[in-house]
Parts: sequence; structure tokens; C-alpha cells
Amino acid sequence: MNYLLQRRQSLIQSFKKQSLDGFLVTNPVNVTYLTGFTGDSSFLVVTPKTGILISDPRFEQQIKEECFVPDEGKGGEHASNYPRTIKAKSPGKDEGLEAHIRSHTKTIYEAAAEVLTKTGAKSVGVEGTRLTLGELELLKQVAPKVTFVPVEGLIEDQRVIKDPGEVKHIREAITVAERAYRMFIATLRDTDTEKDMVDALEGYVRRAGGRSTAFPTIVAVGERGALPHAPPTSKMLNEGSKVLIDWGADLLYKCDLTRTLRSMFGTTPTRRNKFERVGVPFEWVYNVVLQAQNAALAAIRPGVPAKEVDAAARQVFAAARNKDVPHLKLLDHFTHGLGHGIGLEVHEAPRIRPNSEDILKEGMVVTIEPGVYIPGWGGVRIEDDVLVTHNGATLLTTLPREASTVGD
Amino acid sequence: MNYLLQRRQSLIQSFKKQSLDGFLVTNPVNVTYLTGFTGDSSFLVVTPKTGILISDPRFEQQIKEECFVPDEGKGGEHASNYPRTIKAKSPGKDEGLEAHIRSHTKTIYEAAAEVLTKTGAKSVGVEGTRLTLGELELLKQVAPKVTFVPVEGLIEDQRVIKDPGEVKHIREAITVAERAYRMFIATLRDTDTEKDMVDALEGYVRRAGGRSTAFPTIVAVGERGALPHAPPTSKMLNEGSKVLIDWGADLLYKCDLTRTLRSMFGTTPTRRNKFERVGVPFEWVYNVVLQAQNAALAAIRPGVPAKEVDAAARQVFAAARNKDVPHLKLLDHFTHGLGHGIGLEVHEAPRIRPNSEDILKEGMVVTIEPGVYIPGWGGVRIEDDVLVTHNGATLLTTLPREASTVGD
Repeated sequence: MNYLLQRRQSLIQSFKKQSLDGFLVTNPVNVTYLTGFTGDSSFLVVTPKTGILISDPRFEQQIKEECFVPDEGKGGEHASNYPRTIKAKSPGKDEGLEAHIRSHTKTIYEAAAEVLTKTGAKSVGVEGTRLTLGELELLKQVAPKVTFVPVEGLIEDQRVIKDPGEVKHIREAITVAERAYRMFIATLRDTDTEKDMVDALEGYVRRAGGRSTAFPTIVAVGERGALPHAPPTSKMLNEGSKVLIDWGADLLYKCDLTRTLRSMFGTTPTRRNKFERVGVPFEWVYNVVLQAQNAALAAIRPGVPAKEVDAAARQVFAAARNKDVPHLKLLDHFTHGLGHGIGLEVHEAPRIRPNSEDILKEGMVVTIEPGVYIPGWGGVRIEDDVLVTHNGATLLTTLPREASTVGD
Repeated sequence: MNYLLQRRQSLIQSFKKQSLDGFLVTNPVNVTYLTGFTGDSSFLVVTPKTGILISDPRFEQQIKEECFVPDEGKGGEHASNYPRTIKAKSPGKDEGLEAHIRSHTKTIYEAAAEVLTKTGAKSVGVEGTRLTLGELELLKQVAPKVTFVPVEGLIEDQRVIKDPGEVKHIREAITVAERAYRMFIATLRDTDTEKDMVDALEGYVRRAGGRSTAFPTIVAVGERGALPHAPPTSKMLNEGSKVLIDWGADLLYKCDLTRTLRSMFGTTPTRRNKFERVGVPFEWVYNVVLQAQNAALAAIRPGVPAKEVDAAARQVFAAARNKDVPHLKLLDHFTHGLGHGIGLEVHEAPRIRPNSEDILKEGMVVTIEPGVYIPGWGGVRIEDDVLVTHNGATLLTTLPREASTVGD
């Protein structure tokens, strides 16, 4: 696992430039990124010479399995002997790391103070985007000799560029999500409610190999698609003529996809008139959203400001006109940013939106998700996951993006 | 929804005592507690005269449905006219609240600054346990005339005492979790893996009416029960002679339960010798854990320090001896706190553990979850949810707590 050591080395280089002699990582996602440990409630202290994972007995065996040697010390130690230290014994494991397992009678802040004192670090960076005002006060109390310096983005700046192993993990999450989607589509029936469908898709993501979904699944029928984050209701599939599905798989790394389908389950004229405001042609809206997505994909290249990619999509919406609904300005109904980075978190840097300062770089993985939300009619969103390469955008998702139907 | 107004009134009384003239709520759980809005990415400004929910267009319809009038303004407004204000129009709704929907071209911090400026508040409390160092810097930049004062626990202190409506919500979550558990137990088979079982129970919690589980479900077979937070593996049910299940339902309010069962799926002598260190009698350990739980339940009364309840359980472990394993000290293997509050979050105040300063009060709802974890053998945990009443502890969970078996 040398890549973990390399990540910590990069962090050391960064904090040394800021004249710090140590760094306290409290964001669990960043602890995972730097150690491979996937549990929570744990901190990491990094100094130029050490990497010390601070955790508690609940996670002791898991830390041994994930960071050290699976069978090492199985049942060996005397249980009450805390704090205790775990170190790698076998070659090939992450030799730079050790773990400090605190007793449950000490807080993690007290344990962090002990570890920091032992390392002798005096000027210690903390994550400004994560550490709360209250946590800083606690740390100052238990480690009065240490100066804590809030720093933003040191680890996030590393995480924004995915190495090939990380891209592989994201591709695996996408494979699982797409397999789950096909299971889901194959098993729909007309009286499924939004809640039934959310529950089914959550189950299929697990069945396809996900440890869970990446975020609460959205299934919105008919005009409920106008709520970009619609919570599921008892509205049935046949009570609308379209269905919007936003889902993702979590296999440690995450993915985030959306498809919007014409639903023939609900397209008898009676139903359509009853449940949705008619007049806005679905296929027209759908194709404008798809064109907007294509324009964004074509605009992606290393060095391009993220807001220009957002603008490329917005220009398509601004130019779209339909003679049946001459007053409808689709741009007014695209009410969120175009996309965001994905990785260990489902929303991370960069942000692709009008007010973003981010610049695209090779190795970023982002969502491109233009959408249109018309109250009383519904919404259309198409969301795919994309790798920024030196050539431009490589789609990681493989599901067709063209308009399609279910229930016919 | 007058209780929401009452909650905000209590907050106003609290922050006035600290000489503040406003409060900015950024923790989404606290925003939900004070407004009824269940989405995220939204802040709340409270002043003595106003309550203003700050959100964005993605949540506009949901806010109307949850905080105002479901059909109000359906499709009415011109879509691009942001920021805009939503106010209650009908009697009986939460008349003290209004919503400020920002444009997606402004950050939520900029929107919060606008709203704070409009209210004229100069000295504004923020949540010290939630606001990050980076967020405070952002707020100072966009609202340079406002003094932000970190305060801890004002809203959490309110939330720790559940009103009858909240207790009802928690009971509903428990009913769902228990129904799901019965479905789960009824459908087990010998070759189910831990992963299969986690996925199945997650599905049953949804089927029984949960919007999701309250946290990632734990199913640990055999000696894997020694990991209090075991992630699921491909280990099969018949590869161990016991199974530990820790699960909960989320219906906005949450619950948290654990049962440990003797599994006859895996109790042939060959399997037991192959997979688990023998010698520690399951029934003895189970009954000590149950006695520890009973001792804790008996110690619960308003006014009692939480750490005394923890100590009541620990005394039972300290006194437990078995002649077949004379050197085994169960107290050494109870390596976490006894319990925690539950409500809108699965872990909230009070903490019931040796170093807790919390005092039990009428209306608190807490878990009582003693456990024993013996590496190479496994673990036993029994976890129930309890309401603190003037008489003592009322069990909210109804599943039997006595030792039982599956697979026979």
C-alpha cells in the first residue's frame, strides 16, 4: 500500500511549506484517504516522521485488518491494556503507519493531545473546512502547548486528482449502479409507488455488489420531477407520464447518475390530463437537456475554467425555443449548478457552476447533470460521470443517454 | 405546527440571555427541529421577531409542502425571479416562519449575510459544535458588520428532552425496526452471508415503512461479533454459532437496537471447533450482559448522573465469574460506553459512559447497550431504547431480551 504512504508524503510536503511541523486530520474521509481505514470516529496525526491513527477499541480489529495484518494478534493481548499501539510487522504493509488505540475512558481529543505531545510537534495544521469552533477550543484545552493552525484544502487538493486506482474504483461503482438500474427497469410495474421504487433500487444496488447506495435514491413520478431532490411519496408510476431516477452506488468510492424516462405506464390521455399540466413536449425538453449535456462534455479539457463548462450548457438552454410553448425559457428552469466532483464523497471539488473558481485538470472525475424543472409539469435531468483526460472528457457511464421509454 | 414556533421561542429566550440579538442555525438537524423542513443545504436565521429559512430552488417546492401550504403557488411564479420569499398564507400553518430562496448564483453564506443585514441583527450566535473555522471566515467576509459568537448546545439542550410527539415518532421507528427484524429472522437460511443479511434487513426496514435504516446495519457471525462495528463480509450464517444484529429504522426520528442470537445453523461440533475458539459458554456471557442491562435500567431515574447508570452495568461485569473460564474478566471486554441519546440523530446527548457529565432528566430517550467482545470468540450485545420517566425507565422496545436461538 505504498500509495497511502505517498499521499501522506504529499501532505507532509504541503504542510512543511506552511512552516508547520505536524497535521491533525479529523475529517473521516481524509483519514480513509490517507490510511485505508474505512471506519469513523478516528483521527490521524501526521508529522514528517510518523503517521499515527488514533482510534478506540471498537475499531481495533478492523484497523488490524484494513491497515496491518489480518490475523495479527488475534485474541493475544490482555484486553484492558489501553492505550496500546499497533504497528505493521510484515513487509509490504504500510510501514509508515501505526495506530494508537485509546481507552474508552479518554476522549479522542485527549488521545490526540497525548499523541501530539509524544511527537513533539508544536505548530500543527488542522482542517479549516472540517474542524468546528468547539473542537478547536477542546484541543486548545487538552494540548495547551500546541499551536493549532487552520489550513484549508491541503488534502482536498490532493483528492481532486484521481489516480488510476481511484478511477478504477469509481468505474466499479458505476458498473454496480448500472447493473442495479437494469434490474430495476426490468422489474417495474404500473402500481409501484415512488417509495416502492426507491426501496427496490436501493436493494438492487446492494444486490449488484454495492455496500449501499451513495446517497438517498430519488424516484420522482410525473410533475414531482420538478423537485430536484424529491423525497419519495405514495404516488404510483402510472400516475405520471415520466419518471426521474437519481441514484448511485457506494463501494467506498461513489458514483452519481440520473436518467429521466418517458413512462408509458401513465400515458393514457385521461391520466395525463388528470395528473400533469400538458403542453410542454417531453421529447423537446429532453433533447435540449441532452444537447446541453453534450455541449458541456465537448467543452471539457484540462485548463478550462469549470464555469465555462457550466456556461456551455446554459447557452444551449438560452437558445432553445419551441413554437408550441413560445414563452417557455428553459434557462430559467435550470436552477442548479451543472456538476461536481465525485470520489470518496458524492459531492467534492471541483464545483462546475456559474460562480466556480475551479479550473479543470487531468484526472478529475465530475458529474455533468443539466436539468430542467417546470412546476406542475415535471423535470428532466441527465447525469453522467466523466473523467477529465488530456484529450477532453471520457464518459465513465455506459448507459444510453438518448430518450427512452418504459412500460410499452 | 405551533410546537415549531415554541421551539424557536425557547431558542430566542436562550440567546437573549447571552445578549445576542439573533442566531444563525447551520446544522441541518437543528434546522429540521426548528422548522419541520427535512431537506439539507439550508440555514435558519432566528431573531426575536423573525424566523427565516434560507434555501435554494432545489428545495423550494419541498419547503412549500413541509412548512407552508402544499399546493400554494404551484407553477405560479416566474422561474428566474430570485431571491424570493415564501410566507404562510393559511391559518394553522407556521405563521412565524418565512423562507428566503436564493438564486443558485449566490452561495448560502452570501444569502445568509443578506438576510442577517435585513433583520438588523448585530450580534449573532452560531453553533460552536457545528460551524467550521472556514465557515466562520466566510461569514465574516460576507457580513463584516455582524459579530458572530460561537455558542454551544442551545438547541441540543432543547432537543435532549423529547416532547410526547417526539416520543411517538421514536416509538414508530421502533415499531418499524421490530417488524423488520421479525421478517428478517423468519427468512434466514444457513448459507446467507453477512452481506446478504445486511442487505435483507435494510430492505425489510424499508418494507416495514422506514424511509431507510438509521445507520449502516451490522450483522456479525461467530467470532466477528468481537468487532463492535463489524463491516459485513462473505462469512455465512452457518460458519458461526452466534449472530449479532445491530440495526435501526429512520422515520425522521430514529431508533437503535441490537440482538445477539445463538445460531443453530452453525452449531455442529465440527463447525464450532473449526470457526470459533470454544470454552467460553455463550449462555453465561449472554446472561451477564442481560443482568448488566437490567442493572442499568433499574438505575435510571431523573436526577441520576449518567455515569452512575454506566457504573451499575460495569459492576455486574466486574462481579461475573465462571469456573470454566476462571481467568476471563468480562469487564475488560466491555470496551465502549453504555449508551447514548437518540432522536433526530442516532447519536445525540446525553452520553452514558464513565466520563460523562450528563444528568438524566425526564423525557430523555437513550439506548442501553452493554456488550462483551472477546477476540477469537465473538461478542454479545443487547441494546434497547428507553424513555426516562418520573418513575424510572420505560422500555420503548418490545422485542424479548432473553437468550433465544435461530435455525432450530
